[in-house]
Amino acid sequence: MPTYKAPVDDVLFLLNDVFRIDRYDNLPGFSDASPDIVAAILGEAAKFCEEVLQPLNRVGDVEGCVRQADGSVTTPKGFKEAYEQLVAGGWIGISAPAEYGGQGLPGTLTVVVNEFLASANMAFTMYPGLTQGAIAAILIHGSAEQKARYVPPMVAGTWTGTMNLTEPHCGTDLGLLRTKAVKQGDGSYKITGTKIFISAGEHDLAENIVHLVLARIEGAPAGTRGTSLFIVPKILPGPDGALAARNAVTCGSIEEKMGIHGNSTCVLNYDGAVGWLIGEENRGLQAMFTMMNEARLGVGVQGLAVSEAAYQSAVVYAKERLQGRAISGAKFPDKPADPIIVHPDVRRTLMTIRAINEAGRALVLWTALKSDVAHRSQDDKERQAADDHMGLLTPVIKGVLTDQGFANAVMAQQMYGGHGYIAEHGMDQFVRDSRIAMIYEGANGIQALDLVGRKLGKDGGRAVMAFFNEVQGFIKENGDEAMKPYVAPLGEALGHLQQATMWFMQNAMAKPDNAGAGSYDYMHLFGLVALGYMWAHMAKAAHGKIASGDGERLKAKLVTGRFFMERLLPETGAHLKRIQAGAASMMELPAEAF
Amino acid sequence: MPTYKAPVDDVLFLLNDVFRIDRYDNLPGFSDASPDIVAAILGEAAKFCEEVLQPLNRVGDVEGCVRQADGSVTTPKGFKEAYEQLVAGGWIGISAPAEYGGQGLPGTLTVVVNEFLASANMAFTMYPGLTQGAIAAILIHGSAEQKARYVPPMVAGTWTGTMNLTEPHCGTDLGLLRTKAVKQGDGSYKITGTKIFISAGEHDLAENIVHLVLARIEGAPAGTRGTSLFIVPKILPGPDGALAARNAVTCGSIEEKMGIHGNSTCVLNYDGAVGWLIGEENRGLQAMFTMMNEARLGVGVQGLAVSEAAYQSAVVYAKERLQGRAISGAKFPDKPADPIIVHPDVRRTLMTIRAINEAGRALVLWTALKSDVAHRSQDDKERQAADDHMGLLTPVIKGVLTDQGFANAVMAQQMYGGHGYIAEHGMDQFVRDSRIAMIYEGANGIQALDLVGRKLGKDGGRAVMAFFNEVQGFIKENGDEAMKPYVAPLGEALGHLQQATMWFMQNAMAKPDNAGAGSYDYMHLFGLVALGYMWAHMAKAAHGKIASGDGERLKAKLVTGRFFMERLLPETGAHLKRIQAGAASMMELPAEAF
Repeated sequence: MPTYKAPVDDVLFLLNDVFRIDRYDNLPGFSDASPDIVAAILGEAAKFCEEVLQPLNRVGDVEGCVRQADGSVTTPKGFKEAYEQLVAGGWIGISAPAEYGGQGLPGTLTVVVNEFLASANMAFTMYPGLTQGAIAAILIHGSAEQKARYVPPMVAGTWTGTMNLTEPHCGTDLGLLRTKAVKQGDGSYKITGTKIFISAGEHDLAENIVHLVLARIEGAPAGTRGTSLFIVPKILPGPDGALAARNAVTCGSIEEKMGIHGNSTCVLNYDGAVGWLIGEENRGLQAMFTMMNEARLGVGVQGLAVSEAAYQSAVVYAKERLQGRAISGAKFPDKPADPIIVHPDVRRTLMTIRAINEAGRALVLWTALKSDVAHRSQDDKERQAADDHMGLLTPVIKGVLTDQGFANAVMAQQMYGGHGYIAEHGMDQFVRDSRIAMIYEGANGIQALDLVGRKLGKDGGRAVMAFFNEVQGFIKENGDEAMKPYVAPLGEALGHLQQATMWFMQNAMAKPDNAGAGSYDYMHLFGLVALGYMWAHMAKAAHGKIASGDGERLKAKLVTGRFFMERLLPETGAHLKRIQAGAASMMELPAEAF
Repeated sequence: MPTYKAPVDDVLFLLNDVFRIDRYDNLPGFSDASPDIVAAILGEAAKFCEEVLQPLNRVGDVEGCVRQADGSVTTPKGFKEAYEQLVAGGWIGISAPAEYGGQGLPGTLTVVVNEFLASANMAFTMYPGLTQGAIAAILIHGSAEQKARYVPPMVAGTWTGTMNLTEPHCGTDLGLLRTKAVKQGDGSYKITGTKIFISAGEHDLAENIVHLVLARIEGAPAGTRGTSLFIVPKILPGPDGALAARNAVTCGSIEEKMGIHGNSTCVLNYDGAVGWLIGEENRGLQAMFTMMNEARLGVGVQGLAVSEAAYQSAVVYAKERLQGRAISGAKFPDKPADPIIVHPDVRRTLMTIRAINEAGRALVLWTALKSDVAHRSQDDKERQAADDHMGLLTPVIKGVLTDQGFANAVMAQQMYGGHGYIAEHGMDQFVRDSRIAMIYEGANGIQALDLVGRKLGKDGGRAVMAFFNEVQGFIKENGDEAMKPYVAPLGEALGHLQQATMWFMQNAMAKPDNAGAGSYDYMHLFGLVALGYMWAHMAKAAHGKIASGDGERLKAKLVTGRFFMERLLPETGAHLKRIQAGAASMMELPAEAF
């Protein structure tokens, strides 16, 4: 059975030594987050994840959620009690504004805690995760009254939230949606339609559920310009805020799916349910977009989180399982065989996963800090730069960390041999659970298109130029002997990324298919450069600190960083070649030839 | 729901036009396999797979196998009737010798039919597949009496076979096995021990099961040199061959696993079961090895088979699902949206899977023909060369086609978006089923070690030099303008493979970890070159035939081949770099650092 230990020390190294969180002290909430406080918070979160949530992970997978005859949904055994503890610990709202009952701490801490939660139990973590997304949407787009009514119980966890976008015939192309909203005399709307794949759509963890629903107001224009966003509570609050009448939204069924069985993925039927417009009419999709960066960052974190959990299990197995002898001679001649960690191919697996996880975590925290700047800074220019960073890096983090998270879970499972294929060891659950992160919140092909089609050219390429300049600046400033093994390969990889960017500029205007044909490779090329840049930063911090203590940990950072440069970064050349191949052979065949 | 159409035309193109099966007419059984006969056989096989087996695929996944209280095992509904049809069609023994009831046709045809069967229903196909493996073992190592007793009912399908290697504490390292065999006065042995992961270990499809069991004879030397192979029938045949007493082997439980639910993966308990030695004492592992090439080739075929089935489903979906508009302008303005096949990233997915499948099928058939030569030719030199080819290419086919088969199933699932994650569409079953092929019959890391550690240096590198010479010769002979887009990139990729081979020769002697560190990349580098070589062959055959008919099909071959060269082959450079990075950063950390 898998065990899990939250990587608190690794996070503290990143926050304190690599990104120097003390430099952000001017932002609201950051001065409350002194190193001691942060360490204490993360220690508490770790304890909850390791002791309460992780043991429920397999329970959730085996039991799943059950829809009862009356349409109510029962979550797996133990989930309700764990949710009560989550709520009691205040974990949903640690970064929410104090005026709504939150603790106002940096959003970065929520991102860290969410990684721990999802490592321990991804399916469970989606319940509070979706609530956090709904809170963000209401805080940005809701009226003062809506905020006052809905946000406090959601921060407190007594109500949860959902996002209702997908319909049977449309997911990626939301312009096609059919759920309709009819305005009533009192300013409310009646919502009618069917939504599918609604995570946490119905459950027994909280007393109410706040559905955010995309629908089309009667007479609205066709396509994406005719969608509006509505708040549709499961139980309607009365004038005093207390729960009153049951609304006409019901769970029609729970999807039978590959993984995340502990989360109820519902078909929700809206049958003239009462809802209220949030934000402006026909601007629903734009409203969704403003919180999409955070939601996608959150899914990227899930990829990282499951990869970390799978890695930790693989490490335990690699040290315990005795099989064969080291190629360089027996390491434990007194045992019947050596532990498999002596074998280079097992090391390759462990080092690969670890090199991606540690840099992925850095990339996530770096970007989470930018998100805090974008939301909390008083400086317009700083805010804009941070926002540029978010827009550019979010599709990369979502696409690359979920693709790699799944690939890493598969690699960790492989290390178990046949035992990895058997349910009782839990490795196949990591594979099945992590698989969804590549799909939802915008399938990874869509992330790649977002990056290449929207983000690259936005504002004259301001964001990508700033990224290139930053990396290039770092490389120039750190040309010393100790940093060479990191910055030299990084420079080469950055060159590949710049060539690929240039190739799009020269070849995608006249023939847009060239952009689509290379987008997926570009996303991964970008991801490798970004992860490589994180390794260069971590190496620098490790060099700077290694004399003063924790030498083994810091030395491991330096070695793992070198492994990344030697083994993973060389892929950038292949990505560039594929991008430069263009769309010709890809698009040449007629559809009938398939 | 997935549908499946066996790629009969593609196979006929390979057999008749690419590999010119008529050139093998001198081999026993081949003259009976005229193009008409082959087409008729494959047409029949296709019909059975499409109409009978494929509809049972999801049934098998959902129902699984059930162990009853008495230890008997019930297969999913419909499996028994389908098995009766398989047996009635004579499909198990089409290549088995006529003296044992087979049809004596080329083994290559069995490989083709097994691809169709596994595409339609991988879990079902393992029952006859393991029987074929057991037949091969008995034919090679059994006494005349053993052959006469066991092979005819297995060819007829009234008895099935299994392989019993793995024990709870050992899979890869079979030298550790503990199952013991005690010699009896009558020359038989009593076998006692526990075997796990025994596919088709107990079921209700046939009246008897012939277990081939690796065990250690009392007093045998420790390690692999002390293992012997035994025949242990579930029901002991009496002197007349009729079934007599139940043997002391029982199914203790069925493993709950990630996929292939339709196959019963059993824990088998041997409690003084009666068995007979097959082959020589203490030579059991060698006996297993002689049939390992065919078994591993068969698993590689499973990877290809599931990839093909997943591809076909993805194509149907890509043509039906309407979402978004082509980046180059709407293609179906009268529809609410374009089918997703217009999007480059969807094309990338389809072309990638197809380019690997078609070349993978070629590589399999080329190697299957070599296997026929190795087993049936009268010419020593020809036999030796074919055997060299088998030894060299088998780990490549097993490792690369199963890794790619799984990756392709994941890509095909991805195309479905959220619907791919839902069980009812069947895409997640392809992912879960194909996953096991990377693990069993030697995990793919072991295939890579076999290739680099055993096969490369064998006989002074005779096999690999012959392969290099053949590919190089082909490139030289086909330098014309039409073939340039194929042979030029192939030449570059071959160069990378040769450099990598040279690097091992120069760096792995002194430091064997360098071989292990690069083995996985080398296997995939080799696979890309071999698949590229297949594409060059197919392109040549297509060019030669395109004037005389079936132009669209052949043009598609030429385009798909170019796609392979432009998009997939460039990976060879990254593999070479990783190999040349050596073992240093991979092995540097102490085990405690993990």
